[in-house]
Amino acid sequence: MTDLSAPPFSSRHIGPSEAEQQRMLEAVGFESVSDLVAVAVPEAIRAKDRLKLPAAASETEAIAELRALAGRNQVLTSMIGLGYHDTITPAVIRRNLLENPGWYTAYTPYQPEISQGRLEALLNFQTVVSDLTGLPVAGASLLDEATAAAEAMTLARRAGKSKSNVFVVDTDALPQTKRVLATRAEPLGITLVEHPLDGELPECFGVLVQYPGASGRLRDFRAVAAAAHEAGALVVAAADLLALTLVAAPGELGADIAVGSSQRFGVPFGFGGPHAAYMSVREGLQRQMPGRLVGVSVDADGDPAYRLALQTREQHIRREKATSNICTAQVLLAVIAGMYAVYHGPEGLRRIAHRVHRHAVALADGLRAAGLEVVHREFFDTVLVRVPGRAAEVVAAAAERGVNLWQADADHVSVACDEKTGAAEVTKVWAAFGVDASDVALEGDVLPAALLRESAYLTHPVFHSHHSETAMLRYLRKLQDKDIALDRSMIPLGSCTMKLNASTEMEPITWPEFAAMHPYAPEAQAGGYVELIGTLERWLAEITGYDAVSIQPNAGSQGEFAGLLAIRAYHRAHGEIGRDVCLIPSSAHGTNAASAVMAGMRVVVVACDADGNVDLADLDAKIDKHRDALAAIMVTYPSTHGVYEESITEVCAKVHGAGGQVYVDGANLNALVGLAKPGEFGADVSHLNLHKTFCIPHGGGGPGVGPVAVRAHLAPYLPGHPLHNDTPVGPVSAAPYGSAGILPISWAYIRMMGSDGLTAATEQAILSANYLARRLAPHYPVLYTGRGGLVAHECIIDLRQITKETGVTVDDVAKRLIDYGFHAPTMSFPVAGTLMIEPTESEDLDELDRFVDAMIAIRGEIAKVASGDYDKTDNPLRNAPHTAESVVADEWTHPYTRTEAAYPVPSLRDGKYWVPVRRIDQAYGDRNLVCSCPPLEAYED
Amino acid sequence: MTDLSAPPFSSRHIGPSEAEQQRMLEAVGFESVSDLVAVAVPEAIRAKDRLKLPAAASETEAIAELRALAGRNQVLTSMIGLGYHDTITPAVIRRNLLENPGWYTAYTPYQPEISQGRLEALLNFQTVVSDLTGLPVAGASLLDEATAAAEAMTLARRAGKSKSNVFVVDTDALPQTKRVLATRAEPLGITLVEHPLDGELPECFGVLVQYPGASGRLRDFRAVAAAAHEAGALVVAAADLLALTLVAAPGELGADIAVGSSQRFGVPFGFGGPHAAYMSVREGLQRQMPGRLVGVSVDADGDPAYRLALQTREQHIRREKATSNICTAQVLLAVIAGMYAVYHGPEGLRRIAHRVHRHAVALADGLRAAGLEVVHREFFDTVLVRVPGRAAEVVAAAAERGVNLWQADADHVSVACDEKTGAAEVTKVWAAFGVDASDVALEGDVLPAALLRESAYLTHPVFHSHHSETAMLRYLRKLQDKDIALDRSMIPLGSCTMKLNASTEMEPITWPEFAAMHPYAPEAQAGGYVELIGTLERWLAEITGYDAVSIQPNAGSQGEFAGLLAIRAYHRAHGEIGRDVCLIPSSAHGTNAASAVMAGMRVVVVACDADGNVDLADLDAKIDKHRDALAAIMVTYPSTHGVYEESITEVCAKVHGAGGQVYVDGANLNALVGLAKPGEFGADVSHLNLHKTFCIPHGGGGPGVGPVAVRAHLAPYLPGHPLHNDTPVGPVSAAPYGSAGILPISWAYIRMMGSDGLTAATEQAILSANYLARRLAPHYPVLYTGRGGLVAHECIIDLRQITKETGVTVDDVAKRLIDYGFHAPTMSFPVAGTLMIEPTESEDLDELDRFVDAMIAIRGEIAKVASGDYDKTDNPLRNAPHTAESVVADEWTHPYTRTEAAYPVPSLRDGKYWVPVRRIDQAYGDRNLVCSCPPLEAYED
Repeated sequence: MTDLSAPPFSSRHIGPSEAEQQRMLEAVGFESVSDLVAVAVPEAIRAKDRLKLPAAASETEAIAELRALAGRNQVLTSMIGLGYHDTITPAVIRRNLLENPGWYTAYTPYQPEISQGRLEALLNFQTVVSDLTGLPVAGASLLDEATAAAEAMTLARRAGKSKSNVFVVDTDALPQTKRVLATRAEPLGITLVEHPLDGELPECFGVLVQYPGASGRLRDFRAVAAAAHEAGALVVAAADLLALTLVAAPGELGADIAVGSSQRFGVPFGFGGPHAAYMSVREGLQRQMPGRLVGVSVDADGDPAYRLALQTREQHIRREKATSNICTAQVLLAVIAGMYAVYHGPEGLRRIAHRVHRHAVALADGLRAAGLEVVHREFFDTVLVRVPGRAAEVVAAAAERGVNLWQADADHVSVACDEKTGAAEVTKVWAAFGVDASDVALEGDVLPAALLRESAYLTHPVFHSHHSETAMLRYLRKLQDKDIALDRSMIPLGSCTMKLNASTEMEPITWPEFAAMHPYAPEAQAGGYVELIGTLERWLAEITGYDAVSIQPNAGSQGEFAGLLAIRAYHRAHGEIGRDVCLIPSSAHGTNAASAVMAGMRVVVVACDADGNVDLADLDAKIDKHRDALAAIMVTYPSTHGVYEESITEVCAKVHGAGGQVYVDGANLNALVGLAKPGEFGADVSHLNLHKTFCIPHGGGGPGVGPVAVRAHLAPYLPGHPLHNDTPVGPVSAAPYGSAGILPISWAYIRMMGSDGLTAATEQAILSANYLARRLAPHYPVLYTGRGGLVAHECIIDLRQITKETGVTVDDVAKRLIDYGFHAPTMSFPVAGTLMIEPTESEDLDELDRFVDAMIAIRGEIAKVASGDYDKTDNPLRNAPHTAESVVADEWTHPYTRTEAAYPVPSLRDGKYWVPVRRIDQAYGDRNLVCSCPPLEAYED
Repeated sequence: MTDLSAPPFSSRHIGPSEAEQQRMLEAVGFESVSDLVAVAVPEAIRAKDRLKLPAAASETEAIAELRALAGRNQVLTSMIGLGYHDTITPAVIRRNLLENPGWYTAYTPYQPEISQGRLEALLNFQTVVSDLTGLPVAGASLLDEATAAAEAMTLARRAGKSKSNVFVVDTDALPQTKRVLATRAEPLGITLVEHPLDGELPECFGVLVQYPGASGRLRDFRAVAAAAHEAGALVVAAADLLALTLVAAPGELGADIAVGSSQRFGVPFGFGGPHAAYMSVREGLQRQMPGRLVGVSVDADGDPAYRLALQTREQHIRREKATSNICTAQVLLAVIAGMYAVYHGPEGLRRIAHRVHRHAVALADGLRAAGLEVVHREFFDTVLVRVPGRAAEVVAAAAERGVNLWQADADHVSVACDEKTGAAEVTKVWAAFGVDASDVALEGDVLPAALLRESAYLTHPVFHSHHSETAMLRYLRKLQDKDIALDRSMIPLGSCTMKLNASTEMEPITWPEFAAMHPYAPEAQAGGYVELIGTLERWLAEITGYDAVSIQPNAGSQGEFAGLLAIRAYHRAHGEIGRDVCLIPSSAHGTNAASAVMAGMRVVVVACDADGNVDLADLDAKIDKHRDALAAIMVTYPSTHGVYEESITEVCAKVHGAGGQVYVDGANLNALVGLAKPGEFGADVSHLNLHKTFCIPHGGGGPGVGPVAVRAHLAPYLPGHPLHNDTPVGPVSAAPYGSAGILPISWAYIRMMGSDGLTAATEQAILSANYLARRLAPHYPVLYTGRGGLVAHECIIDLRQITKETGVTVDDVAKRLIDYGFHAPTMSFPVAGTLMIEPTESEDLDELDRFVDAMIAIRGEIAKVASGDYDKTDNPLRNAPHTAESVVADEWTHPYTRTEAAYPVPSLRDGKYWVPVRRIDQAYGDRNLVCSCPPLEAYED
């Protein structure tokens, strides 16, 4: 007996119904989707077979399978430490932020006017970091502590005065930090020197001190900092934010840069991530900081408004000038950490820290009383115990009692206390050591007097106003309501695939069996994770046509870096040490070039022709010129112009012919899945963006996951384990499986779509883009098209002529779209003066039409500017976006009406989104850099 | 070693911090909360001891304990049926509606302007019911199918022409429906006659037919309906909504009234509830319908707007005229069921029904092929199998295979298929019967040709526009954004305690172990539920000072009814059959009197004095007059005037002295918990509202839970089990534990607050009310106060003089508060022309002050009307609320400014709530009753 089939999940994921799809096909001029695809996608790259994936599961079936996998993770109490500590995510934050699509489906706040809520939340995070580290400027998150340390290393090199190539690393630094630093240092020619940081400091451009150390030791590094500064080196402190509520701030001890993790501020383990790392710097270094930085500026009315500061350092980093490839951050997790501080306030945080410390002290006292040796006298939360020859035995005895400890070596066990540690846990640990010490009191502190924190922190009212659950709930709602995310309207970004993040995909990530697993828990306890990850890697290999996949990179940029490291290691293993040229087309995303530089390559730009395709003649010329040095070419496919280049197989062949490797950037994989496989049509390596093609939500600018996929010959050069030292290439992330905690999302998506669903999604994405292009073409020129006048999964409309004729810019159109309730398309990338639009398969026809209608209405407004019906400068476009306050103002001085400003189309009358600020002055904010919460007086009228 | 204590949950639940509390005490003129309480609460009623409850658990601990309880529920596949069927809650609806405080914390939509979202959702529900049942008017939900049937019975009696006392019930009706009908019929003097409904119909005023029958049988009841109508009787069909997508509508077969459950439209079992029952009626009966009804009206601009229709039938039903005590409905669940239909659309629903039917047919075919007897030839989803002497054995064999079936009697097993039934389940059932029939095909239908559905349903566009997950997500967001719920601002209702519904309390109810348990699953499988319920009943008894509690009543009204039934049964058991007078003070809520009438009592009103207290002289007189007939007095304590009456113990003594019982309505228990116990200070019985005092959210007008608590002598008369017949009093709800699925909320609240937390909450509630009263008193007269000029947990401000002097009404103030971002207080209850305000303990001082500041600003506006600065009729109060559209209008004709209209206080500039419609014309809607989705043209300008 076979079941009567229920409609598949794909019919929920894909927006248009069959009838709508038919109407769209008619508009584009095709009878069927396969006819359209046959013309749009070059035959040469088409996959021969259906994807070999299990048949699509229903949502119910997928959840049942995930529950079974979850059941095979055995979650013990984790006292492993090493930079990851158990924490209590306040339920009000979990439900209303982590589990709320108003937060998790938002895009990166490049359009600040519709992002004031999450920008305020990030400013809170920056204030927490800045206050606690005692350094004035903090960024809006980095990927993990280890990569943040690596970014600090390169910052120190750029900014420091020393000419040395040496970076000194504290012997007591976290082991994964050391390993990631090594991966990152080698291609850049930086020599890492481990050093105990007592005695004389070697000559160096920078030194990293772990505070407290990985062994738990808490020490005053003022002398180290003074010595370093004297030698012209910069001091990086890798510091624990919770400890900093009790001990002196790194900035007070002389650190120039602080980095670390904010995981223990309410963010679950997730078997390694995602969590937000932080970086803060002293005055003078802020313009060198990698990653995003939220700043305060003013809007057109002069009211304070938030936006990303110094953005020119980021999306516009170009090629060989690049110093960091950081792009995606960990916004959602930074927001959680910031809210955790808002909810607890400084007193609450200090109380938590104190409780953690007291338990650690009691633990140590009990062990000492029983005659055991506790190595360090001064520590915050981690107790290192010497048990000669017995470490493995003690760790096993603890595991039997339900507690994971850390075996530092054969003779030492380390025990880290955290927010969840209570008497019961301490007693179990004692028992594992064979000790009964139940009469120990929770009284002692062992913080060195010289390190006691005296400076205030979190004095801003926001950290004192939301301590009841009701107040926190409303604060979260208020901020969320300021923003546009996917739960309101489509986000038609060409640079990112903003598709549905289905609830069924999202639910498992907050189940405790997935959320509460420490990244270094024994793999035997993580059976469910290991299987899920293995399956996902196999599926991704099948979809991309590669032979091996590593999901370790926790952002696309890290995937690029890992892919290029594989190429580099492959050449070196084959004796081709001189191959260091990376060809990059001029249309490429800036990150490509930055990654190549980080991987020790020289970037050589290949020109594009008038159609946006790689200029084959220039390619030939560049290959000829660099034949012996050719390491790789990096191309995006379909191209960043949204076109399936016919010549891709030829490009691959040419590069291979010269001994180079082909890197296909997977950013546009949503146009290929089920139709073509990069690993089959000529590429050697790709990174994917699970947060684009495979439904991990953008979280307002992260988390991302950037797996790297390779053909067999590169497989030995995938990233290694962060705690082992047995692979040709080291780790690129702190956790073995990167941001493992969100992988159930992509697993569920593939499991519920199956081969047919995934292919149908790609086909619909192509149809939707062509439908938009066809409807917009009479109003705006479409810049690039491929065969049959078709685009791939996105299209670029060209406003340069319009701007020339009318003065109306892409900026004006983007901001005016806000008045129509839409997030803007990608602005001026890859071509200045254009808008790139990607609808994705998840938008239904009503929404696509609503967007097109808005664009057409805006075109009408532009025409009025051209005709003189609208003033050249005082018109609804230039003044966009319009806040409610501005259109309700008692005096209305504009030559257009209030209705034209606020309700240009009637559909807005049913539930209009009101933007909270007017257009933001970017330059003002960069001139007057303020990156932590401004005093309330700033908001007074 | 003891743990360093973390801040208790109570510090999150209670809004004001200690410092804020101190400032509030200063304003009220007390040094400490205990000083305040000592004056406010009469010594005579004060509890002697702390509550004997376990020490408060942290949120983490409570969740761990709930997980352990959940682990002791063993969830089998349920094929029990009997009106409850497994269903798939679409994840997008679970996450964004059931788990979203924007929906679940909303209040009943008495203020329609700020409730347009949930009113639209309810209108969808009504349209589903009306379309599927083929009857033109459907209500916005009732409590469960059994009580809905009872409401239909009394409606038939009121509306029918027959003078008979007989109500005929289908032999094939659901057993719990029969039992609840019996409970409800007896006190009203209605004789129930069970009848197979073939052959001649007895004389009766109404007949209930189950369609399809409890045994699964599907039959055409046209002849029954014709015979009943000929005899002047009304026909009630209890119908399955899913079946109605395939078979003829009850209205088409002659039913006058349809009732049933919408549970299988996406609402989890929850071990019995909450689920939304429905009722629909033919033209002419709508003004007799019990419960709430959403209708379409117009706002001040003439635009369509939703609101509760015919409200005069409800809150204002007064005393002996009452015909139903229905008050709380099941709004949240009705909204889910409506959204389920929106998401699937008519084709999707039909496909689901067809799949269910085909599996049932295949199941029957397989059994028949193996020689077993299937009793009915025509059925929808339920197959009744005759297995002489073997029924228990088959049920046990199925349970071993993980499936619960229903043993109808020793010789019959019934098997119900549902949305989740697939080949695997059918095969297991076959195996339980000892059959292997795997070659049966899913082909046959056995629906009688005469009953095939031909009429269309769900043709409105709303059922055709939100079928992708993205579209559904945005629809839910759009509707939610139209409303004010607790996640935006305080809801200062005197008639309901609108306190925090904490996330930790809410999380467990959607865990599958609690959500997926059938109400009639064997109790051995429900170990976690049974323990949780037993514990909760014990805790509630301890808190109230009673000896026994039943949580069966699934609304306060049902608790009242159950309490009065206990009194009635007690008197009768003691031979006092003549005791049928129920004294009710004139200030009582209308529901009290309605419940008394339903319990077969005569209502005698006792006067109140000028201070709002029971007039003791009048009480004496009434007792004298009715001494031998005195059954009970029903009083609310503190009184509905928000005052602790000093005389309560005297009142109790007087009534007891005359042989009566004392019923204390627990609606105001939030002013007593931890301070005083009704069961100790003189009462015999109370009902509680878990959705007021014990944190179950209001869900926009339900679910509620109304446990009944009694002293020992009444304990034998608590409600019985709906499937058993072994108790002196029958069941009042269809499920043995009522709305068991939401009891974890109250359990968690009590568990996390402990004695100290609960008492502190009560104290803060009293302090907050007195703080509001003190701050408002200079601007608005406070109507009633008790000792020391203090109020209890709420206060009434009197606008009658203001109205007389200025023409500004309570309505104007209530609607103007919307412009300030607030839900209105309770209007004109218990005293016309007043506003009753209850802040609860969960609001922090900032929010209380923001509300008071709004009230003071409004008082200033009233003063301008009085002084002539504002026009008498064209002023911001009379024109409130102001939509964005109205203040953005190009032409502004009002004599006050746009700013005065929209931004009367500066704090509104940060995140103003914009009301979606202007003031709604209630009378227009009642004159032009439209209770299903209006055509889109209605919205055209």
